[in-house]
Amino acid sequence: VAIRTFKAFVGIDVGGTFTKMAAVTEAGRVRLEEKLPSQVEAGPASFVDRVSGVVERWIEQGLRPLGAGLGLAGDVDSRRGELRFTPNLGGWDGFPFKRALERRLKTRVVVDNDANAAVWGGYVAELKRKPRDVVGITLGTGVGGGLVLGGRLHRGATGSAGEIGHTKVAPGGELCHCGGRGCLEAYAGSYGILRLAKRLLEKDGSRGRRLLEISGGADKLEPAHLSKAADAGDPIAQEVWVETGRKLAVGLENLILVLNPDVVLILGGVSRAGRWLLDPIEAHLAAQPFRTAFSRARVKMADNPNAGCVGAALLAKEA
Amino acid sequence: VAIRTFKAFVGIDVGGTFTKMAAVTEAGRVRLEEKLPSQVEAGPASFVDRVSGVVERWIEQGLRPLGAGLGLAGDVDSRRGELRFTPNLGGWDGFPFKRALERRLKTRVVVDNDANAAVWGGYVAELKRKPRDVVGITLGTGVGGGLVLGGRLHRGATGSAGEIGHTKVAPGGELCHCGGRGCLEAYAGSYGILRLAKRLLEKDGSRGRRLLEISGGADKLEPAHLSKAADAGDPIAQEVWVETGRKLAVGLENLILVLNPDVVLILGGVSRAGRWLLDPIEAHLAAQPFRTAFSRARVKMADNPNAGCVGAALLAKEA
Repeated sequence: VAIRTFKAFVGIDVGGTFTKMAAVTEAGRVRLEEKLPSQVEAGPASFVDRVSGVVERWIEQGLRPLGAGLGLAGDVDSRRGELRFTPNLGGWDGFPFKRALERRLKTRVVVDNDANAAVWGGYVAELKRKPRDVVGITLGTGVGGGLVLGGRLHRGATGSAGEIGHTKVAPGGELCHCGGRGCLEAYAGSYGILRLAKRLLEKDGSRGRRLLEISGGADKLEPAHLSKAADAGDPIAQEVWVETGRKLAVGLENLILVLNPDVVLILGGVSRAGRWLLDPIEAHLAAQPFRTAFSRARVKMADNPNAGCVGAALLAKEA
Repeated sequence: VAIRTFKAFVGIDVGGTFTKMAAVTEAGRVRLEEKLPSQVEAGPASFVDRVSGVVERWIEQGLRPLGAGLGLAGDVDSRRGELRFTPNLGGWDGFPFKRALERRLKTRVVVDNDANAAVWGGYVAELKRKPRDVVGITLGTGVGGGLVLGGRLHRGATGSAGEIGHTKVAPGGELCHCGGRGCLEAYAGSYGILRLAKRLLEKDGSRGRRLLEISGGADKLEPAHLSKAADAGDPIAQEVWVETGRKLAVGLENLILVLNPDVVLILGGVSRAGRWLLDPIEAHLAAQPFRTAFSRARVKMADNPNAGCVGAALLAKEA
């Protein structure tokens, strides 16, 4: 029997631990999905071989690739299609991803920063009216970002734009994974959030009894436990979210002053904390003297776990 | 005898004290110039009457206006051609500048923020190779800014983009004229610079003997005195510039991380401090871990007193 074929873009979102893949139609519909371990230590050639294997299996199932997009964590040279620098995908810098994937898959490949891909995915999937100017921020272990200006991704002079996570919200403050001090990521990245929670638990564990019950101990603490415990009334969990929201608010305040966006889109797992995070942000932004810009910018949280791979696929469509 | 006519755009740059006007040819050449008191307290209708009088005199001298651009200090609604909010041009908000000037001058009028106009003027006049992405910052009593992205002025969702002076470089720090704390302007605006100098003089005036000689007393201190005294080896003047440069560097660091520009262009009178200001900025930016973006961005100082009115004229050309 003849199989039914369909045209779609392939999106590949590479994280330090897992890689997500999706086949996305021109209309933005996800037709096929796959999650596989990234196995960073096995090297980039092995990675290209494994994701290509998935695409080849999809082709047997009827996929006719229109192009592919690859989102990588790090400083990406989009033109050459490789990583210039990456703290999370050690040893993958300098590998010719674009060339290797194009040769193997016989389709056009676009390589971009993973946060750019996720923000583009969030822009296309979450914002129905397509505002012109959107600042996107991705919350995870690290904090990334991307800018949609005039309805298009703004990549900057070297493709490095959108490093929102390393703007300083408390110059000289907490240590960040990048080596700097006071970066937004050092507070709003999951390691920064957990660092604060553990510090508060050490100071007065009795305030965090509910939190410790939920997590099963301070050493097992995850951001999801903090969301649950905050909802259950735990004072430490609530304090952590308010403090995190305040630091995010300072970062967003700077972005709104500079870019005057229609929408600020917060993406990623931490956005599950919902109102706990959004309340201090909205309070801070409402208190700004520059009324026009701040009353225009809507802050929206989206918890779309596929934004990265859908966005990577749709960036291939844009190219 | 017949007068020789010439075509040009009229640029009008309104400051709290003085207004500068220029007739600028399509090629960017300044044909006529004028400086007049703004007389803010006389109201916007009187202002429109006086600048129109200048243009009418220029027309008698041969000017054939191709359009006019007006740069106003404050939050400008470009579409309506009026000020929404202005701390420095009290009572001028809500006045229909675009309509009033178009009716009187019978030419198309563009109204924009004065810093946008100055940055556009600096972009066109100072940067020969026309880089695509430029962040411009204007240093004066206040600190303004403008963004040229993809070779065009980025105005944002409500025309309020580029408020670089109110991004926070020391959250919770020094009081700013906007009412906030820790804004870049509170350190790098001339009032912030003088506040620091006076504080250091109060603490130990003997370190600022040369500075006090040059200024003729702490109460007469101006930024120009600080430049002169720094060159003459005055320790307080040098400390003030280094400290100001450090705060500017934090603001620029954030902008480079977010926008990844080709050039950062610093405009305005304070830029006379030249190397005293530039050295701590370059040292700070060179120490950043995000090599690609920071090695790409060149920091350039330009001391073009006509950038505002030339830029306003050239914005009329763009429209």
